[in-house]
Amino acid sequence: MITSASNPQIKNMIQLQKKAKARWQQRVFVVEGPKMVLEAPREWVERVYVSESYLRRLREAVQKEKSAVGEGFGGRENLTVLGELERLGYEIVSDSVLKAVSDTQTPQGILALVRMPEYGLRDLLASHGGQRRTEPVGSRTESFGSQTGSAPSLLVLESIQDPGNLGTMLRTGEGAGISGVIMNKSTVDIFSPKVVRATMGSLYRVPFYIAEDFAQTIGELKRQGVSVYAAHLKGEKSYDKPDYTKGTAFLVGNEGNGLTEEAAKLADMYIRIPMEGQVESLNAAIAATLLMYEAYRQRRG
Amino acid sequence: MITSASNPQIKNMIQLQKKAKARWQQRVFVVEGPKMVLEAPREWVERVYVSESYLRRLREAVQKEKSAVGEGFGGRENLTVLGELERLGYEIVSDSVLKAVSDTQTPQGILALVRMPEYGLRDLLASHGGQRRTEPVGSRTESFGSQTGSAPSLLVLESIQDPGNLGTMLRTGEGAGISGVIMNKSTVDIFSPKVVRATMGSLYRVPFYIAEDFAQTIGELKRQGVSVYAAHLKGEKSYDKPDYTKGTAFLVGNEGNGLTEEAAKLADMYIRIPMEGQVESLNAAIAATLLMYEAYRQRRG
Repeated sequence: MITSASNPQIKNMIQLQKKAKARWQQRVFVVEGPKMVLEAPREWVERVYVSESYLRRLREAVQKEKSAVGEGFGGRENLTVLGELERLGYEIVSDSVLKAVSDTQTPQGILALVRMPEYGLRDLLASHGGQRRTEPVGSRTESFGSQTGSAPSLLVLESIQDPGNLGTMLRTGEGAGISGVIMNKSTVDIFSPKVVRATMGSLYRVPFYIAEDFAQTIGELKRQGVSVYAAHLKGEKSYDKPDYTKGTAFLVGNEGNGLTEEAAKLADMYIRIPMEGQVESLNAAIAATLLMYEAYRQRRG
Repeated sequence: MITSASNPQIKNMIQLQKKAKARWQQRVFVVEGPKMVLEAPREWVERVYVSESYLRRLREAVQKEKSAVGEGFGGRENLTVLGELERLGYEIVSDSVLKAVSDTQTPQGILALVRMPEYGLRDLLASHGGQRRTEPVGSRTESFGSQTGSAPSLLVLESIQDPGNLGTMLRTGEGAGISGVIMNKSTVDIFSPKVVRATMGSLYRVPFYIAEDFAQTIGELKRQGVSVYAAHLKGEKSYDKPDYTKGTAFLVGNEGNGLTEEAAKLADMYIRIPMEGQVESLNAAIAATLLMYEAYRQRRG
C-alpha cells in the first residue's frame, strides 16, 4: 500500500492532474471514479489505484450482494466492479494519498492512469468513409453508420475555454453520432481533469484531432468534400435549413468572443440559431448541441 | 467610501451571497458585473456598489473615448455605463470590500442589491393568454407572441442541482421564447450567485414559479389545457414527433437520477431523445435545450 504522497508514482500523478505539458510529454492522463475507470478500453489502462476505504466498502457491498442473491433479490453490481478490478490489477493507496491526487472535493476512491489514444484527421473522416461507403470500425461507428448514413459529421472548435463545455460537447456529440471533434491548439486541453469528467466516458469513444494549423485542417476537410458551416450571429440561414446529410462540419467559436473572423471566413456558409428576447448568444455547448442534433435528426430521416 | 467588510450593509451582502434563507427572508439578491447590473430593470435595483479601482478605470476609459470621438473613431460604451451608473446612484467601496462580497475569483468591480421579482403561476400562463389570445405583456413576450403564437411553452424542473445547468436553462429558454420555468422546492435556488451569473440576464426576463406542491402545480397546468411531456429514457416517442404548437410543458429531472416516478407519472406522454453510442443520458440543460428548441422550431413554422 502506498501511504505517502511523495511516492514517485503519486507525485507524477499529481503533476499529470495539474499540467497539460506533463500529460502530453508522457502521453498519459488520469481518470477518476468507477465509471470512468471501468469504461476505459482495457488496453489503454496503465495502472489502477484504489483507496483503502473504497476497497473495504466494495468488499462489504459484495458480501451483502452474495447473501442477498440467496434470497432472490439485489443486483450484483459491486461483484462486477470487484471482478473487473481483479482482472485489471490494482494498487492500494491510503485515503489521504488518493485525495491528494484527486481533482474533486469528494473523491470516489478509485482512479487510473490511462494512455492517450492517437487519432489522425484521416480517422475522423475515414471511419465514415468520407464520400465513400466503407465498413465502419468499432461498435459506435457501426451503430451510427447503420442508422444515419456514413457521411462525416464533425464538430470543429476554436478556442473553447470552459472544460465543462468541451466535455459536454463530446458527450452530446457521441449521443448525436458525430464522427469526431477537431480543435485548434488554444482549446482547453481535452485531457484536463474537468474535461475528462464532463465527457462521462465519451472521451473513450469520440475520435478527436488537435490541429497544428487550424486553417489548413479546415481546408483539408473542404477538399475531402465536407461542407463547413459556421455558427455565427451574422448567419443568413437558420441552422435547420441546410441539408446536413452529406459530409458536414460545424465550426463553433470561443465562449466569450465567438469565432474569429479568420476562422469564420473559412466556412462555406454562416448559419444562425434564432433567438427570442434579449439573448445575445447561446452557450457554446448549447449551440453545438442544436447543430449536431439537427444533423442527426436529418440523418435519422 | 466603505472600507470595512464589517460594515452592516456589506456583512448583509456577504450573507445574501452565501445563504438562500437570507435572500428569501429579505427578498433581495446580489448581481455582479456591469452587464448584470445595467440590464436589471431599474425598479428592481436597490443599491449599486462599485470598487474604487473600477470607478477609476471607467473614468479613464471615458476620457479616452471623449478624446477619440473628436478623431472620429471609438465607441462610447464606457460613457454609457458611467451615465447609467450616475442615474442609478452608487456607493463606492474599497477593492477588498468588493472582493469580500463577490462570488468570483476575479471580481468585475461592480455589484448590486436587487429586489426579487414575484410571479404567480398565472403570470406564466396568462402572458401568452393560456388557450385564449390576449395582449402579450412586455417586449419579450410581444416578440414571442407575434412570431410563435401565444400558447404557453413551459420548462418544468424537478430537483435540478447544478447552478450552471439552471442558469443555462433560463438563458436558453429565453432564446427559445418559453413563457416560463416552474421548479420544485428542491431545485437549486434560482437566486444563488452561480445561477444568477449563468443566466446572463435572462433571470430578469423569464418568469418563474417555485411550486410549493409540485404535483398539484402540474395538475393545474393540465387543467389549463397544457400538455405535459416527460423527458424520459423509457419514452416511446422521439422528442421531435409530438405537436408542440399548443400549450406545452417539458418535465426535466435531476442530473443524476432523472425524474422521480412520482413526477414522471403526472406527464401526459413520455418522450425520449435518441442517442447513439454508449451514452446513457444527456446533461439536463442539453436535454432541455433540445426540447425547448424543438417546440420553438415548430412554432416558428
